[in-house]
Amino acid sequence: MMDVKKITIIGVGLIGGSFAKGLKEVSEKNNLGYEITGYEPNVDNLKKAVALGVIDRYETELPNAVQDADLILLGVPLGAMATVLSEMRGCIKPNTIITDVGSAKMSVISAVKEVFGEVLPNFVAGHPIAGKEKSGVEAACSDLFIDHRVVLTPTQETSADAMATVRALWESLGACITEMAPEFHDEVFAATSHLPHLLAFSLVDLLNEHEELGNVFQYTAGGFRDFTRIASSDATMWRDISLSNAQAIVKWLRSYQAELDNLIGLIDGQQSDALYKLFHDAKVARDTHIVKDTL
Amino acid sequence: MMDVKKITIIGVGLIGGSFAKGLKEVSEKNNLGYEITGYEPNVDNLKKAVALGVIDRYETELPNAVQDADLILLGVPLGAMATVLSEMRGCIKPNTIITDVGSAKMSVISAVKEVFGEVLPNFVAGHPIAGKEKSGVEAACSDLFIDHRVVLTPTQETSADAMATVRALWESLGACITEMAPEFHDEVFAATSHLPHLLAFSLVDLLNEHEELGNVFQYTAGGFRDFTRIASSDATMWRDISLSNAQAIVKWLRSYQAELDNLIGLIDGQQSDALYKLFHDAKVARDTHIVKDTL
Repeated sequence: MMDVKKITIIGVGLIGGSFAKGLKEVSEKNNLGYEITGYEPNVDNLKKAVALGVIDRYETELPNAVQDADLILLGVPLGAMATVLSEMRGCIKPNTIITDVGSAKMSVISAVKEVFGEVLPNFVAGHPIAGKEKSGVEAACSDLFIDHRVVLTPTQETSADAMATVRALWESLGACITEMAPEFHDEVFAATSHLPHLLAFSLVDLLNEHEELGNVFQYTAGGFRDFTRIASSDATMWRDISLSNAQAIVKWLRSYQAELDNLIGLIDGQQSDALYKLFHDAKVARDTHIVKDTL
Repeated sequence: MMDVKKITIIGVGLIGGSFAKGLKEVSEKNNLGYEITGYEPNVDNLKKAVALGVIDRYETELPNAVQDADLILLGVPLGAMATVLSEMRGCIKPNTIITDVGSAKMSVISAVKEVFGEVLPNFVAGHPIAGKEKSGVEAACSDLFIDHRVVLTPTQETSADAMATVRALWESLGACITEMAPEFHDEVFAATSHLPHLLAFSLVDLLNEHEELGNVFQYTAGGFRDFTRIASSDATMWRDISLSNAQAIVKWLRSYQAELDNLIGLIDGQQSDALYKLFHDAKVARDTHIVKDTL
């Protein structure tokens, strides 16, 4: 494991801020001597982060923020990763570990390769599976990752030391680490997260101000509210995810359309038994695999 | 309004049982002298309904259950409506009011026309928008409909007296009545209820034991759980709804397919601004029209 003292957070929002605040508490509790520096274009947000005890200090210029860093966490939207990486290029120490928290991994790894000419051995791509109804540094809390999964997606080039170091930091915040190939990560989360979010956005968009039905939302009940809850997610984040994981997402959207084609065929053909089986198998699968909750 | 004393519930489950139990309490409280009779093939369930105070008495033969009834509520699955109606034919008094609680209305109205040769003036098609995580008579409760919407869908033939009577009974249980043409009802609920249920079943079915991803449910989080909650609904009920409201459901599934075609085009074409607008508009629409809740 590598010795990490100076930690820089680029983008001090909910995730970056919670990572910072958690490490500050771990450091104070165990006298680890971490120094947590924050950077982002919004200086007011950085001042707020210091006032809230999320970070120790901030820099207003990216080079100053990263030049002495032992570890840099990229907490910026997927759409900003490439820009931030190219602004860091030439400013960081050779052994500095870089990690990120993006919801898609292949695009970030490609950005690193593009900017640095190689997939840096000290770059560790990561994706914490944690969220909250509120975003922004005000919502940052040190226990956000306790018992939450953090997926790390090493490549052939990734150094074992860098991996072990990033893993240990997340584990010190109570997270459970899962290692996955980045390609597999992007497939899994296209299917289980990106697809349902896009399906929910699409249903609300389809029904919104529908010429035939008017304000049809007035007739919806709890089932619709829960189904579309994820359609209240941040539009910028989902635009970036859609663009960054486009290939896997389109593949899963097409598979889903094939599933709907099959369903339409069963309903058109009044295939009673086949419809029952589809609904029954789905219900059993969900009741078996998804944590029990009320209907 | 017509004088209603003898009320018969065909199918004493959650909805029929809650209607019965609620009316029993209203009757006892206001000395209305209702007599609530239950009927269904499962005699054990009828005995349980009496023991639970859901109904006053039961009959084990349909003709005996309906012959003296002033009002009959059909609380059976949509797939059983036609059979029950034809079994009742010739056994009921000319002025008996018949109402139902099915989630699709055109199919029930057609069944009445088929069985009785006309859309009976005393038939009032209804749809209470109320549910619960549990089903069955054990889950029946007298306050299930308080502040819940009950949609009544009269036709040209429906008598004003029968409508007023059914409306008054539901209102005595605390429900809010909405009147709608049956065709419009089936469109509205195909779009806002049947469509999301089928989309949720389809996503779980698509991912269940997927050859490529294995048990991918292990990587899902709260968003997936809420999105698929309605995929834990009763398979028989949703088979019947799919078959009974097939035309409107297929129409809405096809509109949704077109919505997904558009989304795939935007992602394939990396249409950043159009994707942002779609997600942003959907988020605003949901946050505006659907009761606020946590993300």
